[in-house]
Amino acid sequence: MKYIVFGESHGPAIGVTLEHVPPGIEMDMQFICAELKRRAPGQDAMSTARKEADEVEILSGVFEGHTTGTPLCALIRNTDTRSKDYEKLKNLPRPSHADYAATIRYKGYQDYRGGGHFSGRLTAPLVFAGALAKLILKPENIEITSGISMLGGTANPTPEQVQKIIMDAKMKQDSVGGAVACSIKGVPAGFGAPDFGCNAEGIFSQYLFAVPAVKGVSFGAGFGFSCMHGSEANDPFYMDGDIVRTRSNYSGGINGGITNGMPIDFEVAIRPTPSISLTQDTVDLSSRTDAKLNITGRHDPCIVQRALPAIEAAAALAACELLGI
Amino acid sequence: MKYIVFGESHGPAIGVTLEHVPPGIEMDMQFICAELKRRAPGQDAMSTARKEADEVEILSGVFEGHTTGTPLCALIRNTDTRSKDYEKLKNLPRPSHADYAATIRYKGYQDYRGGGHFSGRLTAPLVFAGALAKLILKPENIEITSGISMLGGTANPTPEQVQKIIMDAKMKQDSVGGAVACSIKGVPAGFGAPDFGCNAEGIFSQYLFAVPAVKGVSFGAGFGFSCMHGSEANDPFYMDGDIVRTRSNYSGGINGGITNGMPIDFEVAIRPTPSISLTQDTVDLSSRTDAKLNITGRHDPCIVQRALPAIEAAAALAACELLGI
Amino acid sequence: MKYIVFGESHGPAIGVTLEHVPPGIEMDMQFICAELKRRAPGQDAMSTARKEADEVEILSGVFEGHTTGTPLCALIRNTDTRSKDYEKLKNLPRPSHADYAATIRYKGYQDYRGGGHFSGRLTAPLVFAGALAKLILKPENIEITSGISMLGGTANPTPEQVQKIIMDAKMKQDSVGGAVACSIKGVPAGFGAPDFGCNAEGIFSQYLFAVPAVKGVSFGAGFGFSCMHGSEANDPFYMDGDIVRTRSNYSGGINGGITNGMPIDFEVAIRPTPSISLTQDTVDLSSRTDAKLNITGRHDPCIVQRALPAIEAAAALAACELLGI
Amino acid sequence: MKYIVFGESHGPAIGVTLEHVPPGIEMDMQFICAELKRRAPGQDAMSTARKEADEVEILSGVFEGHTTGTPLCALIRNTDTRSKDYEKLKNLPRPSHADYAATIRYKGYQDYRGGGHFSGRLTAPLVFAGALAKLILKPENIEITSGISMLGGTANPTPEQVQKIIMDAKMKQDSVGGAVACSIKGVPAGFGAPDFGCNAEGIFSQYLFAVPAVKGVSFGAGFGFSCMHGSEANDPFYMDGDIVRTRSNYSGGINGGITNGMPIDFEVAIRPTPSISLTQDTVDLSSRTDAKLNITGRHDPCIVQRALPAIEAAAALAACELLGI
Repeated sequence: MKYIVFGESHGPAIGVTLEHVPPGIEMDMQFICAELKRRAPGQDAMSTARKEADEVEILSGVFEGHTTGTPLCALIRNTDTRSKDYEKLKNLPRPSHADYAATIRYKGYQDYRGGGHFSGRLTAPLVFAGALAKLILKPENIEITSGISMLGGTANPTPEQVQKIIMDAKMKQDSVGGAVACSIKGVPAGFGAPDFGCNAEGIFSQYLFAVPAVKGVSFGAGFGFSCMHGSEANDPFYMDGDIVRTRSNYSGGINGGITNGMPIDFEVAIRPTPSISLTQDTVDLSSRTDAKLNITGRHDPCIVQRALPAIEAAAALAACELLGI
Repeated sequence: MKYIVFGESHGPAIGVTLEHVPPGIEMDMQFICAELKRRAPGQDAMSTARKEADEVEILSGVFEGHTTGTPLCALIRNTDTRSKDYEKLKNLPRPSHADYAATIRYKGYQDYRGGGHFSGRLTAPLVFAGALAKLILKPENIEITSGISMLGGTANPTPEQVQKIIMDAKMKQDSVGGAVACSIKGVPAGFGAPDFGCNAEGIFSQYLFAVPAVKGVSFGAGFGFSCMHGSEANDPFYMDGDIVRTRSNYSGGINGGITNGMPIDFEVAIRPTPSISLTQDTVDLSSRTDAKLNITGRHDPCIVQRALPAIEAAAALAACELLGI
Repeated sequence: MKYIVFGESHGPAIGVTLEHVPPGIEMDMQFICAELKRRAPGQDAMSTARKEADEVEILSGVFEGHTTGTPLCALIRNTDTRSKDYEKLKNLPRPSHADYAATIRYKGYQDYRGGGHFSGRLTAPLVFAGALAKLILKPENIEITSGISMLGGTANPTPEQVQKIIMDAKMKQDSVGGAVACSIKGVPAGFGAPDFGCNAEGIFSQYLFAVPAVKGVSFGAGFGFSCMHGSEANDPFYMDGDIVRTRSNYSGGINGGITNGMPIDFEVAIRPTPSISLTQDTVDLSSRTDAKLNITGRHDPCIVQRALPAIEAAAALAACELLGI
Repeated sequence: MKYIVFGESHGPAIGVTLEHVPPGIEMDMQFICAELKRRAPGQDAMSTARKEADEVEILSGVFEGHTTGTPLCALIRNTDTRSKDYEKLKNLPRPSHADYAATIRYKGYQDYRGGGHFSGRLTAPLVFAGALAKLILKPENIEITSGISMLGGTANPTPEQVQKIIMDAKMKQDSVGGAVACSIKGVPAGFGAPDFGCNAEGIFSQYLFAVPAVKGVSFGAGFGFSCMHGSEANDPFYMDGDIVRTRSNYSGGINGGITNGMPIDFEVAIRPTPSISLTQDTVDLSSRTDAKLNITGRHDPCIVQRALPAIEAAAALAACELLGI
């Protein structure tokens, strides 16, 4: 199964085209819509004021309520776009956004409005694809869960702490970063390989780094390994009835690039939203001089909580690839 | 350019086959051998006692001292193998090694001697491939450097500290993990894309996770972002003559999956060597019962210092892919 | 550049999603529509009576009249569908159509109406993608032309002969096959390789066999080589000013999988439309018994003339891959 | 399973590296050597006088007589090389050989001796890989056979005719082309797809065109379709007990890019060996002037009979890809 997410924030539509979807998957639209709602903006004070219905139209690959196995294209029309907010930014790249890199990469032809193809809005079709992947994995008893493991320096924050940290950042016209911990239960031992291109960690990371704002991916103890000894870090085996398990799971369910039957546990680092309301230093690409920038469009003070379904979607798609689906 | 590393620790030979190598690269064998020597074992008390000449024979793809552009196969014969050290381990998977996962994946047919295809020895052909990649990148003025950023909990250790930390672990029959920071200078802005499969971070991570023992990959501030605000984390632009630069480089040279012209800075987490001399809990896969394990073969108390050339090799190969070489 | 054609004949829409389109290509919609019109049905008595406006809506990847370089999705709504024509065929696979193979492949979940995803209608988005590829190749001075080289046993038929052969078949409730010769001028020497996966002939053939009804692909003298001697078949070199050329082009512009600078000449075999009005033998997949079949839906007595733009489209897309676009 | 064939005719060795080989395949070396012997030169007056032992050394991926599932590298040392035969050809590209195209592609760095990487000798590792693929397919009851369907204009020649046609060509210092028909029995219905990249015909053709000298690939009636009507060309279904079959197999076992359970029948066109002893016109690439060429090295007057195992090898590797092995 391969996917291409297409669309620009202020273009006619965004969407996703999927190839090699297994035939006969029941399209549980209630589940799919619930997943999309988890990432939808405009639901509370913590997220961007942009409201989008995010109504999905499936153009192909579904017949009589089931996937056909042929390419599936799903689209979401853009409705609440205010392009004029962005026009003045055309020559003033926003720090730590993709604006400048994209101008070079696309020779200035990219749609710059609202972040264009780089907009967080593009996670909507990703979440659609991930919801479909979850429906595929469900009969295999594979379950994916995630939570905020770090927010603005606070580890495993409670919902109240999450709200406070984000509202504090918003009040200061600032934004805040975090980390997400994700666990995939039910993947059997024996998938993956040590080699380049089929390594389990490599497969997951490729999907995860395609989620906007992800800047780090680690498995099991991850960067914590750099403070550990082997005697602490090794996961001792034991027999649980006839099943081989490990007492700890510092390896995050993967050894030598191959799953070992324990949950695949990983963590991703998420940068603070680069869009902040404070005045910032930039350059004017037309005059090639230093410049000041004030960003006034709608934006999130934090995307960590909204990233959860996108991270899970990437994980579900990666799990499908790992399992040869 | 694609590569396949082949071989088993105690088989006839290990090696690498490379496809799509550019023609006309001068094979600077002095440089290649120096790179191989950086990772060779048996050079001091800190690493495994196994000594290998690591003499490379190039079978194809090189003619009159230059690459031809056709597939290049290079091999290194195995010489100093003591297979009997490992035979008794056949049914006792070593904790946090790939033994158990590999037994399931390869249905018990894998060569279990000395870690087989999972041996750290397989980084020798990787370093060969990376040395070739560095020779390709040299005329593009792309330079790759790395260093130990963390070792057993000590940040940016001095050579003396490195030696002490490793010898301490060795004396305790233990091992120790760390992290490596790597920087790639000279990659121009505009390479990569936000999309799955061509994302700069995704490309690098796929190569890096194919290096044994790597359990985390992060770019720029990485997991440090989870404790930062946007106002700290954003990289302000400025004009350096006619060149657009950023004052800080928390983004690690990549925005939206595209290089921005700043150095590509990343860090990888490296687990402690799972091979330790202390008695460990495991299971006997033939009797399906709990068991004890004592590992007596030659092994490293720490692979972080020897990982540097392998990490650089993976980075060089990834940079080639990113640049479309 | 990669493409995914999606859609079913009687679903909401058909279309194509393209990745890695170069940025800055001017979308010459007049040219694109003219290409689409070349393959559109219902234009004369020789083709199916189905009429489709084939109006293309571009959802992404185009901004201010130029490609952006980000994924481009284009769709064509289905309008003139008569699904009831096909319902009775559900369990009666049409001989030499994909119905039976698809039932096994997609476990019966495929949209069977009007050929579903196998419909010749799916060549419309292919022609769109090919038109875009032609626009990309134009500044490289690469030009693609094609013609009917064989029709129902008549070599290089005149337009009058084409009309007569097709109308004869139609009157007999039959269909007729043919072959298309295609030539690509302007591809420089030195593209491709002898190796699997990057071989010029292999690249072209993979695109060409993805066009419905294509059952053979040959280059230069093709199957004619089996009646030739080396002394006849070899293409002697000569200097044309400072340019190396060959006097003949039996090699079809490719030697050892690499272009030699001469036109890339190839031919494709196109089977007679399997949809014929004559009664045919089939099986009933529900009762597992032999059965008779009368096909009454709209269909073409010949698709060779309508295949020309699809063949050229596949060739243009293949040329882009060959050239590393 | 993927393969890379490496090596040059007059380099140290030729060989193949295979990835994703299934574990546990018994290495029937007797069978593998028999396959290699089928293509070996120097066995009779009809083929090149070069004699090679073609002894295979397996460097990796095999342990205790079975494949391990990790990358398998096999090499064959070059022994009987006479490089001086070729030195004078360096600047005189042989008509219809890859010499000129390769000079451009590889910027003159290719090993030109004896055809280098383009030598027919490179089919030895291909046949090795194909023999392994046949061993993988054997338990699936998939069998591949081939024969000469055309030789120098004679259809389905008897062994005596083959000998006569080749010896005639040899006496005239000429060479002769032909065609090979191949049949794969036992592939179940339902493999492949109509889409680009997973189309059964496209998969086979990509492997087949990677065999040197192949200039055409067709399925079932192939180019014969261009002289047929649908009423003749359609394959009527019937029930053979509970099995769906077709009375004829003009489709060559594939409809809509998907196997239909009938034998996969295809034909490949093979050009006459470009190496002929007659004086030919060429150009001198150093002086950029017209020139005459006399080829005096050892070469085959016909490679069609020696191509059979290479075609079968390509077919076996393609069948593995089609079946998802």
